[in-house]
Amino acid sequence: MEFTKRSCEEFVEVLASNAPVPGGGGAAALVGAIGTALGNMVGSLTVGKKKYADVEEEMQALKAKSDALQRKLLDLVAQDAVCFEPLAKAYGIPKDDPDRDRILEEATVTACSVPMEIMETCCEAIDVIKTFAEKGSRLAVSDAGCGAACCKAALLSASLNVFINTKSMKNREKAEELNEKANGMLDQYCALADEIFAAVRANF
Amino acid sequence: MEFTKRSCEEFVEVLASNAPVPGGGGAAALVGAIGTALGNMVGSLTVGKKKYADVEEEMQALKAKSDALQRKLLDLVAQDAVCFEPLAKAYGIPKDDPDRDRILEEATVTACSVPMEIMETCCEAIDVIKTFAEKGSRLAVSDAGCGAACCKAALLSASLNVFINTKSMKNREKAEELNEKANGMLDQYCALADEIFAAVRANF
Repeated sequence: MEFTKRSCEEFVEVLASNAPVPGGGGAAALVGAIGTALGNMVGSLTVGKKKYADVEEEMQALKAKSDALQRKLLDLVAQDAVCFEPLAKAYGIPKDDPDRDRILEEATVTACSVPMEIMETCCEAIDVIKTFAEKGSRLAVSDAGCGAACCKAALLSASLNVFINTKSMKNREKAEELNEKANGMLDQYCALADEIFAAVRANF
Repeated sequence: MEFTKRSCEEFVEVLASNAPVPGGGGAAALVGAIGTALGNMVGSLTVGKKKYADVEEEMQALKAKSDALQRKLLDLVAQDAVCFEPLAKAYGIPKDDPDRDRILEEATVTACSVPMEIMETCCEAIDVIKTFAEKGSRLAVSDAGCGAACCKAALLSASLNVFINTKSMKNREKAEELNEKANGMLDQYCALADEIFAAVRANF
């Protein structure tokens, strides 16, 4: 059964075990989905309210976008498990097998693809949360701050799962390209998430 | 049904809705449980390994502590919902009711207690993750970094749910005491979580 169809309790329990998946990548995707949903909640508490009629359309559009992003992040929990499997298997190939290096390299590139996508999706979510924090219901603004903090944690966690894989890639050009992309996202979006959080914090 | 017994998907869906709970507090507790479990996983991948025989006992003890902390954080998801209910009801009391102020104040203090406990539990978890990061299996060190990032996000999120409540407390002495305690935890443990993450990041 897909991990996201299991109960939260069970997810946490299996995560804590020595089972190969879910690992840091899957946990990052779930935390990103939770962060995105926290922004979405601000939208849910804003739409249909007279006081916020002038942003009704924008909130509806951002809610639809959040729905899609949180759905995608939940799917990425499962995909991370699927894409990690070939790598776990490749480690088991005897060291004198002439195909080992090639298979290991391919599996490493595959294992890297999902955390990269988790990062990209979290960046989109942080952009959306920014607007929820600025224009959404004042009564729910703290939830936008929580959302920003959670999506930043997801972004950071996914990045470690990129870097651990790029480190062992033989194709250094590809590895450096991925590292640069990941570092660019970290620089821009950790700062943005911090800004959102600080702006929310200033309300209290 | 308790929220943590529901599927991860369902939790995220209800979180995104306009339902009063789970809110930022419950989400913080779940993200804290996920972070704690990521540390616990490092322990699970360390115990019983010859290479780490000299830290076997310490790892076993820290795993038992992580089990308790992640269990407590999952319980706090439910407790946050229970302790928020009186506040949601108190807001509904007519403004001219002479008991309104007293009931609202009591409900605010109650609503504050769970995020405070979430913060304290996340601080304990970050202390545990520090040792997992330093002494646990090198193969799983990235998961300790993810755990630190997630517990920090949970700590920050819970703090907003403390501050939103202390802001409206009539008893300013009590409010300032809670704020000081929360700020002290933020100062010490956000810095520690950042240190852990940076030390892990330096491996890649």
